[in-house]
Amino acid sequence: MKTYLDCIPCFFKQALDAAKLAGANKSTQKKILKALSKEVLKFDLKECPTAMGRILYKLVRQITGRHDPFKEIKQKSNEFALSLYPRLKKKAERSKDRLLAALELAIAGNIIDYGIKSSLNIDREIDKLFAEEDRIIRREDKGLFDYPSFRRALKKAKKILYIGDNAGEVVFDKILIEEMEDKEIIYVVRGGPIINDALAEDAAFCGIDKYARIVSSGCDAPGTILKFCTGNFRKIFKEAGFIISKGQGNFEALAGEKAPVFFLFRAKCPVVTKHLGCKLGDIILKKAD
Amino acid sequence: MKTYLDCIPCFFKQALDAAKLAGANKSTQKKILKALSKEVLKFDLKECPTAMGRILYKLVRQITGRHDPFKEIKQKSNEFALSLYPRLKKKAERSKDRLLAALELAIAGNIIDYGIKSSLNIDREIDKLFAEEDRIIRREDKGLFDYPSFRRALKKAKKILYIGDNAGEVVFDKILIEEMEDKEIIYVVRGGPIINDALAEDAAFCGIDKYARIVSSGCDAPGTILKFCTGNFRKIFKEAGFIISKGQGNFEALAGEKAPVFFLFRAKCPVVTKHLGCKLGDIILKKAD
Repeated sequence: MKTYLDCIPCFFKQALDAAKLAGANKSTQKKILKALSKEVLKFDLKECPTAMGRILYKLVRQITGRHDPFKEIKQKSNEFALSLYPRLKKKAERSKDRLLAALELAIAGNIIDYGIKSSLNIDREIDKLFAEEDRIIRREDKGLFDYPSFRRALKKAKKILYIGDNAGEVVFDKILIEEMEDKEIIYVVRGGPIINDALAEDAAFCGIDKYARIVSSGCDAPGTILKFCTGNFRKIFKEAGFIISKGQGNFEALAGEKAPVFFLFRAKCPVVTKHLGCKLGDIILKKAD
Repeated sequence: MKTYLDCIPCFFKQALDAAKLAGANKSTQKKILKALSKEVLKFDLKECPTAMGRILYKLVRQITGRHDPFKEIKQKSNEFALSLYPRLKKKAERSKDRLLAALELAIAGNIIDYGIKSSLNIDREIDKLFAEEDRIIRREDKGLFDYPSFRRALKKAKKILYIGDNAGEVVFDKILIEEMEDKEIIYVVRGGPIINDALAEDAAFCGIDKYARIVSSGCDAPGTILKFCTGNFRKIFKEAGFIISKGQGNFEALAGEKAPVFFLFRAKCPVVTKHLGCKLGDIILKKAD
């Protein structure tokens, strides 16, 4: 997905939020915004928004001198999500369609963003998801929740390339991965610290290593931009017959690629909802064009 | 009021919105955002946000080549507000405290922003205002709705300097001005087209000239920044014994001045609500410190 002009104000907002979260004082925050102004002047809008995300969070790291400012937040998310695991698992097991329930949970897990503060919110979100089956039917019409295609494609697949997104969310991915236990699964994490995105240590902490081989994409953007990935990952991606891509950042980065991808995410910003023709917060299961 | 770092993302959003409203195509919109990036690098945060507003709307005018892109919107606001006038007047006349009712209407008129689209919204806002007397009491505690001071100061005043804000809103100001008919009133408008702010032609169209002398501040920012005003206006301002300043932009520009000002506005952005300790949409009647 290309970058829209409406993304630009948001880049400044993200940089400021990240600078504050990294504990930067006002003068450092200002330095970051000024550095970002210079980068915006050079940025090619044909690139995806995630490519600017990569630049802006790198600026925050460099200027604050903090290599992984979200480390603690990630660890808390992991622990919090693991504490939910027994309840999540029960919900999936009790469902008429376990795969669908697990899929919805995996997308629900995409709300674990560093913005989410209380366990109450997540409980409410999970309950809401299970109560909204009619919404899912409406979404099928638009091709934005294409469960039948997903189910068919999954049946044929022997290997799955599962591209993860945030720390904590990994636990929700585990529920879905457990429903595909008969497949050979590769779980992909980022190549370096970027916001609260899952690294190999997060995936392992959440127990993904029991079900999948954990592989780094090599990319330190908040989405999997192939040109910034390792040659090894690009080879795995190219050869994959069935890919699950979690989160909006991965959607932005991979939406233009010719590959057998199913994108699973919540639409979190007005630019993406406009791009897709959906509503803010909608849960999306979309086959790549 | 100084500029906060949180204003910076908003400057980009405002520039983009204004560019779109001025009918700029994508490439022109991009040019405007890039030009703004350069200005942000130079901008001194000790200046008020309105000073950047002045720069950014000037960029939009220069780059789109449209001298007054909001002209039509302003005219529509004037006509719409004039069509409400008989109803507004009746509301004021039927109130137990006519001055208070007129004050509240004058602040309610501050919702006439180019964002407001339907008459329904304004009707609802006006009804809400009249139903919210308890909220006003709470606000008095905080010194954010200091009606007793206003009333006292007004009684003593012979001349009033009334600094207007938006087109359309002028009609609401007229209701308040009619309650102060025994005073000599100067009604201040901007020195040049800036967003939907009232110019002399708007004030005259709305009939202010029957009650007040219309004077231009000479400033073409979306607020009255004294250093950009004419010498004549600065003299009038300095000599004034009682000043009413309408709108958030004028508050941002004049909050630091030592002058007998009462600020009347709705708090329209999170930076200002944080600065004042109030909520978004609160109606404010604040004596200058």
